[in-house]
Amino acid sequence: MALQRIIIENVRPRTPTSDYPAKSVAGEAVRVTADIYREGHDVLDAAVRWRGPSDKRWRLERLTDLGNDAWEATIQPSEIGLHRFVIEAWTDHFETWRQYLLRKHGAGLEIDTELEEGALLLEKYKVPAAKSKVLEKAIATLRDRSLHPDNRLAPANDFDVERITDAHPYHDDLSKSATHTLRVDRPRALVGAWYEFFPRSEGGLEGAIERLPAIAEMGFDIVYLPPIHPIGKTFRKGRDNTLTAKESDPGSPWAIGSDEGGHTAIHSDLGDFADFDRFVKEAESAGLEVAMDYALQCSPDHPWVKEHPEWFHHRPDGTIKYAENPPKRYQDIYPINFWPETGREELWQACKEILEFWIERGIRIFRVDNPHTKPFAFWDWMLSDLQDRYPDTIVLAEAFTRPKVMSKLAEVGFNQSYTYFTWRRTKQELTEYLTEVALTDKADYMRPNFWPNTPDILSDPLRGGEPGAFKMRFALAAIMSPSYGIYSGYELCENEPASPDNEEYLNAEKFEIRSRDWDDPDSLAPFITKINAARRRHPALQELRNIRFQHSSNERVIAFSKRTEGPSDVVLTVVNLDPDSVHETTLWLDLNQLGLPEDEPYEAHDEITDTTFVWSGPSPYVRLEPTDPVHLLHLRRRGAVISEPFS
Amino acid sequence: MALQRIIIENVRPRTPTSDYPAKSVAGEAVRVTADIYREGHDVLDAAVRWRGPSDKRWRLERLTDLGNDAWEATIQPSEIGLHRFVIEAWTDHFETWRQYLLRKHGAGLEIDTELEEGALLLEKYKVPAAKSKVLEKAIATLRDRSLHPDNRLAPANDFDVERITDAHPYHDDLSKSATHTLRVDRPRALVGAWYEFFPRSEGGLEGAIERLPAIAEMGFDIVYLPPIHPIGKTFRKGRDNTLTAKESDPGSPWAIGSDEGGHTAIHSDLGDFADFDRFVKEAESAGLEVAMDYALQCSPDHPWVKEHPEWFHHRPDGTIKYAENPPKRYQDIYPINFWPETGREELWQACKEILEFWIERGIRIFRVDNPHTKPFAFWDWMLSDLQDRYPDTIVLAEAFTRPKVMSKLAEVGFNQSYTYFTWRRTKQELTEYLTEVALTDKADYMRPNFWPNTPDILSDPLRGGEPGAFKMRFALAAIMSPSYGIYSGYELCENEPASPDNEEYLNAEKFEIRSRDWDDPDSLAPFITKINAARRRHPALQELRNIRFQHSSNERVIAFSKRTEGPSDVVLTVVNLDPDSVHETTLWLDLNQLGLPEDEPYEAHDEITDTTFVWSGPSPYVRLEPTDPVHLLHLRRRGAVISEPFS
Repeated sequence: MALQRIIIENVRPRTPTSDYPAKSVAGEAVRVTADIYREGHDVLDAAVRWRGPSDKRWRLERLTDLGNDAWEATIQPSEIGLHRFVIEAWTDHFETWRQYLLRKHGAGLEIDTELEEGALLLEKYKVPAAKSKVLEKAIATLRDRSLHPDNRLAPANDFDVERITDAHPYHDDLSKSATHTLRVDRPRALVGAWYEFFPRSEGGLEGAIERLPAIAEMGFDIVYLPPIHPIGKTFRKGRDNTLTAKESDPGSPWAIGSDEGGHTAIHSDLGDFADFDRFVKEAESAGLEVAMDYALQCSPDHPWVKEHPEWFHHRPDGTIKYAENPPKRYQDIYPINFWPETGREELWQACKEILEFWIERGIRIFRVDNPHTKPFAFWDWMLSDLQDRYPDTIVLAEAFTRPKVMSKLAEVGFNQSYTYFTWRRTKQELTEYLTEVALTDKADYMRPNFWPNTPDILSDPLRGGEPGAFKMRFALAAIMSPSYGIYSGYELCENEPASPDNEEYLNAEKFEIRSRDWDDPDSLAPFITKINAARRRHPALQELRNIRFQHSSNERVIAFSKRTEGPSDVVLTVVNLDPDSVHETTLWLDLNQLGLPEDEPYEAHDEITDTTFVWSGPSPYVRLEPTDPVHLLHLRRRGAVISEPFS
Repeated sequence: MALQRIIIENVRPRTPTSDYPAKSVAGEAVRVTADIYREGHDVLDAAVRWRGPSDKRWRLERLTDLGNDAWEATIQPSEIGLHRFVIEAWTDHFETWRQYLLRKHGAGLEIDTELEEGALLLEKYKVPAAKSKVLEKAIATLRDRSLHPDNRLAPANDFDVERITDAHPYHDDLSKSATHTLRVDRPRALVGAWYEFFPRSEGGLEGAIERLPAIAEMGFDIVYLPPIHPIGKTFRKGRDNTLTAKESDPGSPWAIGSDEGGHTAIHSDLGDFADFDRFVKEAESAGLEVAMDYALQCSPDHPWVKEHPEWFHHRPDGTIKYAENPPKRYQDIYPINFWPETGREELWQACKEILEFWIERGIRIFRVDNPHTKPFAFWDWMLSDLQDRYPDTIVLAEAFTRPKVMSKLAEVGFNQSYTYFTWRRTKQELTEYLTEVALTDKADYMRPNFWPNTPDILSDPLRGGEPGAFKMRFALAAIMSPSYGIYSGYELCENEPASPDNEEYLNAEKFEIRSRDWDDPDSLAPFITKINAARRRHPALQELRNIRFQHSSNERVIAFSKRTEGPSDVVLTVVNLDPDSVHETTLWLDLNQLGLPEDEPYEAHDEITDTTFVWSGPSPYVRLEPTDPVHLLHLRRRGAVISEPFS
């Protein structure tokens, strides 16, 4: 027979196809849910059995019946690696008997037969020692219940069934779900502030090391470097993507490979492997982790082009085709043909070895360039193997593409995903998008990483924008999402677009070396530092799924809260989305949901200005200048200890 | 490798687990949809291959790209039985080349290489005859396009690619979905008006035959009989469910079995098999189909009780337990233990043989009593076999139980389901419920059958209700759902509840014989006749998924439309949900969706009163008395031919 006695369905967490592991990070509370039911009215019980890679046996967590056939448990795996879990359900004949007995007794009916049946159940399930005690207690309870003519079900502790059930599990009709998988990553896969910069603009790895203390001081967790490999000379691009590079033009770092080497070499202008190792070590000392770029494409001078011309696309005349997305042309880049007529396995292996090379050199975070132009089957094959062998690896998918493609890349194994946040501006857009990425099934397997800018994208309202616009977009990214990043120059409010209808930067750093005045007194570094400090101080800001939107009467002002369970930490953020005007609003806070008193004042401490407001009731008034468009408010009861654990 | 080159996912129609067939009826247009995508920017093409039970080969229907990686096709299987379908997708290199060429040409770039590539493609795909012609046409098109500097994509018919593609399909990267199944039922599984009545109240099958013309005249399609089998004497229930039956009390027809026989016998008070056959034949002559009750339970006198005591539940003292749901007790009924310690297979087989018996006697529609108290595994096993052998069988699940259980019964094979309509009264409740059953994935496999009353349920607002309330609930059931039913006496507005807090009828027909005055001049028969006639006349009322709610300014007035595709048939229904008061409302119709003119008057012909209103614009005013609470309006352009096909 196809079906078991008890139906167990709709098990979460899961990916859309259930063919890949869902995701969590070590220490994160994972809500396991399922629909569980059988025919008739017998009472069920259910548990999740789960185990991590080094567990010798299954752990067991009892599920709770939420009503309407929905069940849940919370597990908290702490080991990194692939976990398995199975939902089990069984008929609880003892509880069925107990409830039936109580209902019948409550209705004033004879229960002699039922008491006999109880005795038989105890015998069947081999609990003779407890037998008389339980029955005695049952009868006493039933006597009490005759005082309650309303015939409500007795609470579960009416008599001590739980203890007997646990000691002598009698799993009749035992039914099991399929085995589901959960990949537990290290916490950095969920929470991290990324800072992207070009070492060559700092004079190479040596100079880049000097930037590390300032980056660390702003509170970033990760420094991400665009490709550091040799850059091709053939068809090298000049400034602003021009076709004729001058001798002094450095070329795009994404045009990877020259006679110096390919993806496993370092551009000699940046330094050598000793410099690289030192950079990684100094970053680590400063509390920063280094992320590298993994861009599977080659300049015409890449060694692979000579060694493996069969790995590329060819024109009828036999020459290799450069990348093109008309009208855009990338003459300096050869895309790889991932499904060549011959040599596919060798090619895929070679691509994987690049990552392995850098992993062996100590790198564990990679930002993957355009993964949506490579086959899903390739990522499936590569990432599953990689993550089994190096479970602390984190790969971020740079797939600014169609939603189903983005989602599928997350499903097949990417730990994080760039998102549409970059283009979500209005209150409605942001609310809908955050609901999608944080509050639907998508959060089971796709982790967003919010970027207000990248070297390719100077998005509205940053194009020609005032510092207030940069603050606003930064705060949204950094507070809404536990992972976010900026591309350097953001703190200096670099805002000149390449053209009015183009998202690229003018004087794009991709094609030239930029020098910057990091000591600019108008730098947003102090603002960034405050927000990153709040991210570290507040556990509430280190979760994705806890975002809740609060009502704001003004459509240009967005308000959202984040709250932890347990020792409650509550942060309310209010942002003026209009970079041009001052806005006022009346909020309507769900105080109950926020764990705040309805009937006495509470404090809202602004972590940016270090000002404390005393509010009362659910509808405080807020006013935000476009120059200071953000309130990051720690909400707390008055008189709460404010130094520990959250100040 | 696990993944194919092209991802094909989220294929519909399907059931929640995809382990069972989705459902349609012969001739129904079935929308097949899927998410289809691959890496990069190459152009895809896709088709659904499908075949019915007697098809010698697969039929093929091309899918249309809806954008955002969603694809669809419509197929219209006409054969009854299990169909299979597979989605196939492939890379269309020719179209990829064509689009690329046009974009490049549009951007003013050289295309010599691309024209060479086109020639090679034609050669590769063996279309040499058409080669020169296509290239000539392509070049001519490109010349034309130089007049269009806006670089839009050329429409597909820019040159004659389709013809070549079809003649020479070049299915590169061919990827296939799993094989999905679709059970095609006969149309009666979707559309039917049911009329339930107790033959014994008409004096047996003989007398029941005399009722058939009147039932047929009201426009019903199905007469459904509660169990017609011998009724047990042991613990027989008296009137109003009392424990002490008088000698003259007939007992509940659901207490099946006596020394006369069990589920394959006919109660001698009703007649014999000759009478039964005549009843079926007369019904057929009147245009009615007979539905029987399939209630898997036994009276203490059922032959199985002696022959197979192991098929029942036992008390500690060895006696058999009667059915009980404290405080309710059914002393006259023994529930079957569907998972006995021995003899399960024999029991299940015996249960199946009951249905086979009546099927062989010409019955093809069964209303299944309380299927949710029998194992899903049983229904799975039984229905799949039954429907393979007797594909014209229709089984209706009487499962007034939790939503997931109802849904699962539909998934494992029930053709129709009783629903919560019975208790959905307000505009919001009805709108939400209809949205769930008609406009979500649920409609892929679960077909609702709406009942305003049953012999067990005299629901609000029928309890003590006025005729207007009976009209209102009837109209909602019959117009919202293609399948609906009433239990007889409804047309006489029988409205006396057993008690103020009980949904049962006073003098419930389950326990006694009722005589009725069918000639009552206040009977709702004329009203029912008009609505059933409209159901037959309007194809729009024979679909489930086409319901759309229209805005009504008054919360007590609901408005909904149904419209067919093709030769458009549009019906608007407006119902006063308040049985106590007159209500007026202003509607806001989506004229575009309804296919009606925005700028000229149109007609709304009331099919109940035969009155025609001339309306103009989207917001007509409507007023409904509680005594005549329904407008059933055929909307049509003025001057439309009104006799054919819809008057």
